[in-house]
Amino acid sequence: MPSILLTIAYDGTNYSGWQIQPNGLAVQQVLENALAQLLGEPVRLRSSGRTDAGVHARGMAAAFTTSRDIPLRAFVEGTNRFLPDDISVQDARQVPPEFNPISDARAKHYRYTILNTQVRSPLDRLYSWQVREPLEVSAMREAARYFVGKHDFAAFRASNCVAKTTERRVDRVEISEQDDFIIVDVIGEGFLKYMVRVMVGTLVDVGRGRFAPEYVQWLLDDRDRKKAGVTAPAGGLCLMKVFYEGFPEQLSHYNHDSGPPA
Amino acid sequence: MPSILLTIAYDGTNYSGWQIQPNGLAVQQVLENALAQLLGEPVRLRSSGRTDAGVHARGMAAAFTTSRDIPLRAFVEGTNRFLPDDISVQDARQVPPEFNPISDARAKHYRYTILNTQVRSPLDRLYSWQVREPLEVSAMREAARYFVGKHDFAAFRASNCVAKTTERRVDRVEISEQDDFIIVDVIGEGFLKYMVRVMVGTLVDVGRGRFAPEYVQWLLDDRDRKKAGVTAPAGGLCLMKVFYEGFPEQLSHYNHDSGPPA
Repeated sequence: MPSILLTIAYDGTNYSGWQIQPNGLAVQQVLENALAQLLGEPVRLRSSGRTDAGVHARGMAAAFTTSRDIPLRAFVEGTNRFLPDDISVQDARQVPPEFNPISDARAKHYRYTILNTQVRSPLDRLYSWQVREPLEVSAMREAARYFVGKHDFAAFRASNCVAKTTERRVDRVEISEQDDFIIVDVIGEGFLKYMVRVMVGTLVDVGRGRFAPEYVQWLLDDRDRKKAGVTAPAGGLCLMKVFYEGFPEQLSHYNHDSGPPA
Repeated sequence: MPSILLTIAYDGTNYSGWQIQPNGLAVQQVLENALAQLLGEPVRLRSSGRTDAGVHARGMAAAFTTSRDIPLRAFVEGTNRFLPDDISVQDARQVPPEFNPISDARAKHYRYTILNTQVRSPLDRLYSWQVREPLEVSAMREAARYFVGKHDFAAFRASNCVAKTTERRVDRVEISEQDDFIIVDVIGEGFLKYMVRVMVGTLVDVGRGRFAPEYVQWLLDDRDRKKAGVTAPAGGLCLMKVFYEGFPEQLSHYNHDSGPPA
């Protein structure tokens, strides 16, 4: 039974998130249905993790086993024929039977896009968070440095987050500017529920001058969610890539685009 | 009665185009309704031209006169409160009563976005044309040079185009690459129906190797629409800006970003 790892892109606007839930349509459900149609057998995906309602992905990773032995390219092009416009399989590769999409993940790259303009932009509304107050990016960069390393992120998560431990390792936080956009790239070993979005909400409060940059360190120590910034809206967030050991081209891409994880 | 010139952005996905027509919802209609709600009087917009169904804009220009004397900022923020998410007023300025959005326009800047990937991209689907075959951009650039200048564009328009004359002046065609995107920027004095989209469809056929670059010159001379390339899909096209005489900041922006028109 071959094990196949898929890389998946989706526009999360119209979905209740990646993972199948009692209410709403999940990306996982739509993809499992498409794979079942292609393969003529039920398929259960094991993913690298979930994304929340409205969050997008360019590089979600999910694996499954199948009794069908078809060319890898057919997993991409064949599945895409059964998928709606807002979901597509980008890549398929064979992985060892013992491959585990969660525990084998070395790091994840999330990108958050802020649109810093007075007036809202129809063409960017689905994929960015418009912040009207002018943001001081240098202060945001200074604040972002406090996130890097192994920390207790208890203050930077959903209030209903049920994770057993709240320590996580963040490898990089990079903030770049392009026209009216401020782009926050976060790479880390793992993330709590809403963690990137609360990090970004807090960085925006720093950029607005509401928080001093060193307040981030204080929040990490204090561990109180209520004292951090807002949860940035889902639409600005995109899971760019999940990095796995042993995929040289992925690692080289990782090294080239995103730098080493530690 | 003050005359006001608006700069308007919209996501054209769900509209029948800019101009009010018997069927479908037009951007002009939605904007006139919003202005009427804001001002408490009927408003008739005179625009710099139309955009076709599904085409986007970041810088459509349209003017109107009103008996209401309110701050310019209120025309932006007030109107936006009555507009849906996919339309917004970006800017408002007072213009002389004799201002004519069509005849006073000095040039227009359109941008066409091609996504040159094997696999479709959900997050780019609304704003680009996916072309699967690898395109040779150097050949497209060579072909694009033939468009620049005053030419008869009879071969590069909708088959039902009813323009009296088909001579138009194209000032610049620039092709740039960014990641998997090929971006075609066209600046010209005026455009026939579908002109930019047929130009792009033809450039893509050059990039595919179906046409030689110099075939563009042959098409300009031959004037037969049927021999040019396909009409590129509407979603890849965006009206970026309309340039007017006498707006120094617009002209400086024009000179800086887009170069001189001739």
